[in-house]
Amino acid sequence: MKIQELAAYLGATLHIPEGQEELVNADIVDLAPIDTAGNGHVTFLTNPRLTKQVEGSKASAIILGQALKDAPMAQIICKNPRLAMSLASQLFYKAEHSYEGRSKMAFLHPSAEIHESVVIYPFAYVGERASIGKGCYVYPNAYIGEDCHIGEGCVIYPGAVLMQGTQVGRNVIVHAGAVLGGDGFGFTPSADGNVKIPQKGTVLIEDDCEIGPLATIDRATFAQTVVKRGTKLDSQVHIGHNVEVGEHSMLCGQAGVAGSTKIGKRFVAAGQAAIGPGLEIGDHVVLGPRAGMTQSQKNPGEYMGMPVVPAQDWRKQAIAIKKLPDLIKKVNQLEKRLAELS
Amino acid sequence: MKIQELAAYLGATLHIPEGQEELVNADIVDLAPIDTAGNGHVTFLTNPRLTKQVEGSKASAIILGQALKDAPMAQIICKNPRLAMSLASQLFYKAEHSYEGRSKMAFLHPSAEIHESVVIYPFAYVGERASIGKGCYVYPNAYIGEDCHIGEGCVIYPGAVLMQGTQVGRNVIVHAGAVLGGDGFGFTPSADGNVKIPQKGTVLIEDDCEIGPLATIDRATFAQTVVKRGTKLDSQVHIGHNVEVGEHSMLCGQAGVAGSTKIGKRFVAAGQAAIGPGLEIGDHVVLGPRAGMTQSQKNPGEYMGMPVVPAQDWRKQAIAIKKLPDLIKKVNQLEKRLAELS
Amino acid sequence: MKIQELAAYLGATLHIPEGQEELVNADIVDLAPIDTAGNGHVTFLTNPRLTKQVEGSKASAIILGQALKDAPMAQIICKNPRLAMSLASQLFYKAEHSYEGRSKMAFLHPSAEIHESVVIYPFAYVGERASIGKGCYVYPNAYIGEDCHIGEGCVIYPGAVLMQGTQVGRNVIVHAGAVLGGDGFGFTPSADGNVKIPQKGTVLIEDDCEIGPLATIDRATFAQTVVKRGTKLDSQVHIGHNVEVGEHSMLCGQAGVAGSTKIGKRFVAAGQAAIGPGLEIGDHVVLGPRAGMTQSQKNPGEYMGMPVVPAQDWRKQAIAIKKLPDLIKKVNQLEKRLAELS
Repeated sequence: MKIQELAAYLGATLHIPEGQEELVNADIVDLAPIDTAGNGHVTFLTNPRLTKQVEGSKASAIILGQALKDAPMAQIICKNPRLAMSLASQLFYKAEHSYEGRSKMAFLHPSAEIHESVVIYPFAYVGERASIGKGCYVYPNAYIGEDCHIGEGCVIYPGAVLMQGTQVGRNVIVHAGAVLGGDGFGFTPSADGNVKIPQKGTVLIEDDCEIGPLATIDRATFAQTVVKRGTKLDSQVHIGHNVEVGEHSMLCGQAGVAGSTKIGKRFVAAGQAAIGPGLEIGDHVVLGPRAGMTQSQKNPGEYMGMPVVPAQDWRKQAIAIKKLPDLIKKVNQLEKRLAELS
Repeated sequence: MKIQELAAYLGATLHIPEGQEELVNADIVDLAPIDTAGNGHVTFLTNPRLTKQVEGSKASAIILGQALKDAPMAQIICKNPRLAMSLASQLFYKAEHSYEGRSKMAFLHPSAEIHESVVIYPFAYVGERASIGKGCYVYPNAYIGEDCHIGEGCVIYPGAVLMQGTQVGRNVIVHAGAVLGGDGFGFTPSADGNVKIPQKGTVLIEDDCEIGPLATIDRATFAQTVVKRGTKLDSQVHIGHNVEVGEHSMLCGQAGVAGSTKIGKRFVAAGQAAIGPGLEIGDHVVLGPRAGMTQSQKNPGEYMGMPVVPAQDWRKQAIAIKKLPDLIKKVNQLEKRLAELS
Repeated sequence: MKIQELAAYLGATLHIPEGQEELVNADIVDLAPIDTAGNGHVTFLTNPRLTKQVEGSKASAIILGQALKDAPMAQIICKNPRLAMSLASQLFYKAEHSYEGRSKMAFLHPSAEIHESVVIYPFAYVGERASIGKGCYVYPNAYIGEDCHIGEGCVIYPGAVLMQGTQVGRNVIVHAGAVLGGDGFGFTPSADGNVKIPQKGTVLIEDDCEIGPLATIDRATFAQTVVKRGTKLDSQVHIGHNVEVGEHSMLCGQAGVAGSTKIGKRFVAAGQAAIGPGLEIGDHVVLGPRAGMTQSQKNPGEYMGMPVVPAQDWRKQAIAIKKLPDLIKKVNQLEKRLAELS
């Protein structure tokens, strides 16, 4: 792709260093970071701390937010350089799947409906009445239980488990070892022990979701646990039974959502954040790292702490807590002086 | 099952709406939530917020704690409706396992003792001298190492791993991807690096336990890591080496128990709670969400915070911390006014 | 091994009870804890609370830090008894791997270079151009993706996943179900949803590392995520993309390192501790249980809290917080009395 085509694709303005006008037709074959990009590469400046490195870069082009004088390469100037970098990187990247066809070392139940284009690696298991749409890849040791339905263009990576009845939309990536549709954690304590509440529901993953390595999404007690369109879960995220996570959300590593919590769209949870159970959460709620939300929250905004408060309040509290041991001493002194006075 | 039989089974009192006396002999074929239950279904009222929905429900019967006038269906009145609902749901549910017999695509060591009734899915591995009792199911990609012993009626779900020597009692469910008997985390730092302490012990899971998806239970350094009878672990729970978890405990998602902690019976850990290492914990201890217990505790009760305090104290602290930034200002003002006075 | 040989191997001083001089030549065949050690065993005293049990122990020898009078066995006196115990235990222990040769039920791509000594269990998968060094074991359901390289003497336990391009040094243990090289969590939010940043980098695990059960180490966006020589990760630890963990570090259960954090050597993270993203951490930093480090830190030392402070400060804060509700009352009283005075 020529540099001017790339700039056009990204809706960007193109600045060419003086005397290098022929650069507009130079071919770009890959995207790489500033320090390793070479001739034929587009690089990017999304971290201002790296600005000094631009001058020495050998990249043919750079994606950035504002023109830099002295930059020795074509400048592709965008409103959102990180977004442009993401889109550009996708242009030069395609996930590779080395296997072809259907392995005879896999188990495919005769009643399963598997599109002819689907690649099945050895040791994959596809159960009764399951269906797998066009262009999917099912890696080794993946388990697709009975009555699972997987839409077009999905990748089920090694060891991922879709228990009975799990529904997966189109263009979903299930990373290695993730478990979808394990039993929800439902028990009633009694004199005789913890009585299991059968978990009869299922899991629904809508289109364009990504489920991280070793994430768990439990099946519902009744009805469905739902992860809505475009939502991305990082490694080791846990989603409890009967939860709904709204569209285009992002949950970072080791975050957890306890049972029956309903979350709006564009929810963000930083690492190890947790929420629930049984809450109603509005759109555009952001939990900071390890925030713990234990009450319903309709208002958008960033929350921190356990239990959460608005992030700006939490920062004040965190500073105040550092002063607390001295505050106690000061109050004791005030008390003494006041006693002396009165 | 007829409604009056169900009421009798649950030890419940039956109230029939006037003029519908024939309902006592109506057949119940399933249990469902209020909004989706239909004719032939029993529903339940365990969440008071749903009381308004009862009148419009099409269920033939309802399990609840107190009679509701205007309820249009048979009322099955119980002391503990949640327990009754759990028991009733079990009546109409049986976990399904679609496979039958022993797959030739599995690996079964000739020295393994596998009861003739055991169902073995493709790609399961059963090692030397392992034994598997009557009525068990071993799902695809499950690994049963050497000298593992599994009692009657267990289900080992896809990708679950029982490392060498793991002992499992009767009626245990090991969910997908759980790892039992991985090495405990034992190292001694030295000038040459971290020196491994061989982990020579094993893991014992007693009867009626349930081990959640992607939970980990490490083998002991010596002797055994023990999960006692009736205890239930949720997804991604971690149990360190040499731990003992007492009978009928419940550990929710992502909770962790550090090495050598001995816990009494009916322990409850909410999500992401953690405890240990090396502690002695009495019976009936409850950790709230993300509570962190770092000292031994003989007294029953609910604990919160990091480090934990009794839950009612933690709630006061949480409120007080919100006031802390203002408190600091107030104390500074008091100090000034006191200085002016004196 | 004779007792005097063992003492010499450990660089220890040997004390023999009077009249039992022949003990120096007694054979030691195993190491066991005080309460279960018998004749022919060496035991150890690393926990002072067990000192009383020494007198009743039937062990032939004991490793300890200071001579105990009345100890009825040979005393192997070391500066660092825990280290000596670890080294001694290794002498009498060898991990067992019951399988031999290469299973015909495994999938080995013809282009993979697998040393003739490597043991491959059934249902293992080794992809294109992968290489596996001398003396390795690849357990059932392990997945070794294309272009992975594994050095000599490694063990890849059941269900472990090495995604494409993962590099593993010598004498590395990858425990069951760990996932190396899953995609890093990189997305850019946009009006159209979360745009994926392709994760084109890989993972490098240097020599002598140990990766715990169900740990996750994400591949880099570009370049490599690196776990350096001798570092040990416990169960369910998560390492984000582009992270570097320095040599001889230890990360305990459920700890997490967020993306692009560079950590020095001999880092220690207690259970559920977390750090990052994007930080620079010096050598010898220790995070206490569930500490949350959100800013770069060059100084060695132990840190606690969220956000972290030096551990001794955190302990003071924790005590102070318990007093906070009463402090608020006291300040209110002081305010009243001051108002009365003025």
